[in-house]
Amino acid sequence: MADLVLAVDIGGTKMAAGLVALDGSLVERAMRPTRPPGSDEVGPAGDQDPAELLWQDAAALVCGIMDRLSPEDRLVVCGAGCGGPMTLGGAQVSPLNIPAWRSFPLRRRLADLTGLATFVDNDAKALALGEGWVGAAAGASDYIGMVVSTGVGGGIVLDGRLLDGRLGNAGHVGHVIVVPDGRACRCGGRGCLEAEASGTALAAITGQPARLASAVVVERTGMLVGRALASVVNLLDLPLAVVSGSVALGFGRPFFESAQAEMDQRCGLDFARGARVVPGGLGDRGPLVGAARVGLRGLGAE
Amino acid sequence: MADLVLAVDIGGTKMAAGLVALDGSLVERAMRPTRPPGSDEVGPAGDQDPAELLWQDAAALVCGIMDRLSPEDRLVVCGAGCGGPMTLGGAQVSPLNIPAWRSFPLRRRLADLTGLATFVDNDAKALALGEGWVGAAAGASDYIGMVVSTGVGGGIVLDGRLLDGRLGNAGHVGHVIVVPDGRACRCGGRGCLEAEASGTALAAITGQPARLASAVVVERTGMLVGRALASVVNLLDLPLAVVSGSVALGFGRPFFESAQAEMDQRCGLDFARGARVVPGGLGDRGPLVGAARVGLRGLGAE
Repeated sequence: MADLVLAVDIGGTKMAAGLVALDGSLVERAMRPTRPPGSDEVGPAGDQDPAELLWQDAAALVCGIMDRLSPEDRLVVCGAGCGGPMTLGGAQVSPLNIPAWRSFPLRRRLADLTGLATFVDNDAKALALGEGWVGAAAGASDYIGMVVSTGVGGGIVLDGRLLDGRLGNAGHVGHVIVVPDGRACRCGGRGCLEAEASGTALAAITGQPARLASAVVVERTGMLVGRALASVVNLLDLPLAVVSGSVALGFGRPFFESAQAEMDQRCGLDFARGARVVPGGLGDRGPLVGAARVGLRGLGAE
Repeated sequence: MADLVLAVDIGGTKMAAGLVALDGSLVERAMRPTRPPGSDEVGPAGDQDPAELLWQDAAALVCGIMDRLSPEDRLVVCGAGCGGPMTLGGAQVSPLNIPAWRSFPLRRRLADLTGLATFVDNDAKALALGEGWVGAAAGASDYIGMVVSTGVGGGIVLDGRLLDGRLGNAGHVGHVIVVPDGRACRCGGRGCLEAEASGTALAAITGQPARLASAVVVERTGMLVGRALASVVNLLDLPLAVVSGSVALGFGRPFFESAQAEMDQRCGLDFARGARVVPGGLGDRGPLVGAARVGLRGLGAE
């Protein structure tokens, strides 16, 4: 009999469900696009609550994965990652990039659907947990896991524990200030990392998609990520940053070299010297592996 | 019978010892100047190890306080705050501003002297603990306690726990970057908060002691502290910063208003909005009350 975790990842572009073994391996998975607002791909939606339509998609995906269980398998917990913001513990989620869900009771719905103990957390925190489990931070007790994609997010493990913060948003590295008089940020501030280095920001700055960015833009983006990480390393005495996300991984080596060079210049205190930035190690398995870890973490904390 | 904590604070200018009750009240205290390097105020020091001379002063202070115990009092633990850096748990301290002590075994010496379970931590982390016990952050489970004085330091309590970090230096807010192309910092970086807003920095920038700073300098200093705090609030989802230290408290209201205004501009995310910066509430009791809490925290963790 194999113990497995039911993992769910809900993003603005796609949603996924999977089965993850207790050694962190992804055994099964399925995904589908996240229904855009106003979409009627399965029929007229005008008279149905868009939140419920989206939930029906997610529920179908989860049930499909559960159908793949062998008779000798046993599900021990359900873990889910979802875009923020959300209330503490994911009781109600309002993902910025999923307008259909505002204060949607994701945790209770998943628990009702699966009959499992269920835990929900921010998807960037989930990814950080996954990297520390079987990814580029495996075995580390102090690191930040970060995503540089359409937006910028992250999760921090310190003293061996994932930081939550008062409302569960700790790790939100996208609003560390890197250019004090820089671009206006959607948060109301200026020169936050997200306003200078996210895919959205790069598209606004250059007028073209981030993947077409010039070498100068790639280098600047890496430098600014390194600058934010230097502040985090100095503040929290952590030696490792793992960076994932389509922008960071798409830019690749020049991005990471630029980030590391900036950290080397700015992390000079004894405890900070030598802090490293490395690419995430989980590839497209990251979100589901991380979601599984959210479930196991929840079980352990209960 | 009263249970008391033996509290010790070792700073570059003065050292202190005290008795702290379990409700956080400071019952007794004594202090003396920290012997400067090469000092011979109690006789020729040429043939004695300066580290040992300094320890003799500290030991005499501690013994003097222990002599004040009533027969019905009982010491439950010894807690100490000391300038950093130090190895994890304060086993060996090398305070920047006490050159006589390099890798000095403060924890063992205090334990041998007092016969008590003994715990040592960074003095800024100790102060943060004290503020959360009976000071301006009393009862808060998420806050940063910060000192703006000759240097800039701090300690962070998140999810109800003091953060340590890999080598015990978490909370070191002085090297969050606030002016990316700013003044060279002793850490090797540029434009760290400490390089722009510490007493040492202000003296270098203005050519006079921080206490004589103009209104413009006071406002800029508060603004930069607020900027660093905005990055910390956004990163860690914490709603409260408590700031102590001779520079911050000496500048007073204009400093705090400027810091708050900068935070208000830069903490616009739902979870960060309304984060507050307030003056420390413990005055000159802070270091000993915080040191006592270091001891109690150590007992609890054992």
